[in-house]
Amino acid sequence: MTGSLVIAGLGPGDDALVTPEVKSALEDASDIVGYIPYVARVPERAGLTKHATDNRVELDRARHALDMASTGRRVVVVSSGDPGVFAMASAVFEAVEAGPPDWRMLDIRVLPGITAMLAAAARAGAPLGHDFCAINLSDNLKPWSVIEHRLRLAVEADFAMAFYNPRSKARPEGFAKTLDILKACCADTRPVIFARAVSTPQEELRVVPLPDCRPEMADMRTMVIVGSSQTRIISRDGPPFVYTPRSAP
Amino acid sequence: MTGSLVIAGLGPGDDALVTPEVKSALEDASDIVGYIPYVARVPERAGLTKHATDNRVELDRARHALDMASTGRRVVVVSSGDPGVFAMASAVFEAVEAGPPDWRMLDIRVLPGITAMLAAAARAGAPLGHDFCAINLSDNLKPWSVIEHRLRLAVEADFAMAFYNPRSKARPEGFAKTLDILKACCADTRPVIFARAVSTPQEELRVVPLPDCRPEMADMRTMVIVGSSQTRIISRDGPPFVYTPRSAP
Repeated sequence: MTGSLVIAGLGPGDDALVTPEVKSALEDASDIVGYIPYVARVPERAGLTKHATDNRVELDRARHALDMASTGRRVVVVSSGDPGVFAMASAVFEAVEAGPPDWRMLDIRVLPGITAMLAAAARAGAPLGHDFCAINLSDNLKPWSVIEHRLRLAVEADFAMAFYNPRSKARPEGFAKTLDILKACCADTRPVIFARAVSTPQEELRVVPLPDCRPEMADMRTMVIVGSSQTRIISRDGPPFVYTPRSAP
Repeated sequence: MTGSLVIAGLGPGDDALVTPEVKSALEDASDIVGYIPYVARVPERAGLTKHATDNRVELDRARHALDMASTGRRVVVVSSGDPGVFAMASAVFEAVEAGPPDWRMLDIRVLPGITAMLAAAARAGAPLGHDFCAINLSDNLKPWSVIEHRLRLAVEADFAMAFYNPRSKARPEGFAKTLDILKACCADTRPVIFARAVSTPQEELRVVPLPDCRPEMADMRTMVIVGSSQTRIISRDGPPFVYTPRSAP
């Protein structure tokens, strides 16, 4: 039997956002590997072993998955959102590069998913309808100076910005600094979208002008999208539509 | 009967990448509106009217869809990929903002899809595993100077870059200029991924070091992803894995 390793994106939470390709890989798996709440989303069945681990052990998890695949198991590593966007795919390839040569010959496939910024943008309208960037605000794996440098250049490029991992209990300062930088550099009232737990029962959506944004509006389950200077708000009864026009002056 | 307008993403081509949410909206629609090849992907059935239009008439198409929704039809506007990323959602909201006030009160929803850069990245490995930007290289709706400005800042920020609409018969020069700028600014051999028609029978994937890239390697069906300075190549028998590590120095 030949083993395989699939790194699959479960989307933001609702099963209606899981692609048939991913669903079929989950049904065919012998082993599911991932962070506890994501593994919990996969239904139990005979012949399936689940290996749920805590956060922050991504490399160990990747090595364990590769090890099992190399013994002939059909392993699926699950990520929320898309596995290639601030999720498990890079960790797996880091482990492959540093690992034994035969790991390179494994059948390894990445199956895309609906990443959080696309789900959040869709709820608000189309804030990412023009050029944009995606930045992970966690400084666990990069120095804060790199994040700050990128923020300033992103404003100068007039990108809309999608922020992953904006704020956690262990890192309350970064997002406060981010807002300070944006308020100073942008000097306008562009909309900021705080989209929490999109497509789950806990979903919350707020659209706040940049000068009124406060750090505590975000937590680890929040996706933050900052408009470009061109982003528009269409007010109406109920939540406004937010979109960035296709054209730029 | 109350009308509705759904803007739905069909993903990059393979039906296994269409979310159940989108599939269900298509099954419930009275009218499908969109560019000819995307409308052709929706199966015919009794009670469904298809309105296929040519490219470059996005605003007319959006107005037509809104008009039908306001008369009580259940309209689905189809985009390839994700409708919010260089696709139909922004055009619809532009039409809403400029249109009659009652269009703002319509039930308008955007349903996310697998956008081309995520499908292409997944095929190559995880090149978008760290901070990145997405730029539409078409200068139909923005001056070339804006694109060039963004390219230079994106290199300075050390973003990986995903390029939509890199090159068409009507615009052969832009991508040539893009490659010249990148070769001059980056001065390294970072990998560039040319991913054509991902998830369709015409799929082709090439990984080329930046100095060896030539404009004719891309056409309108190609997604181009340029690595950051940190992007790695894992060579092996068969196509290499390309990934950007989670950490930055």
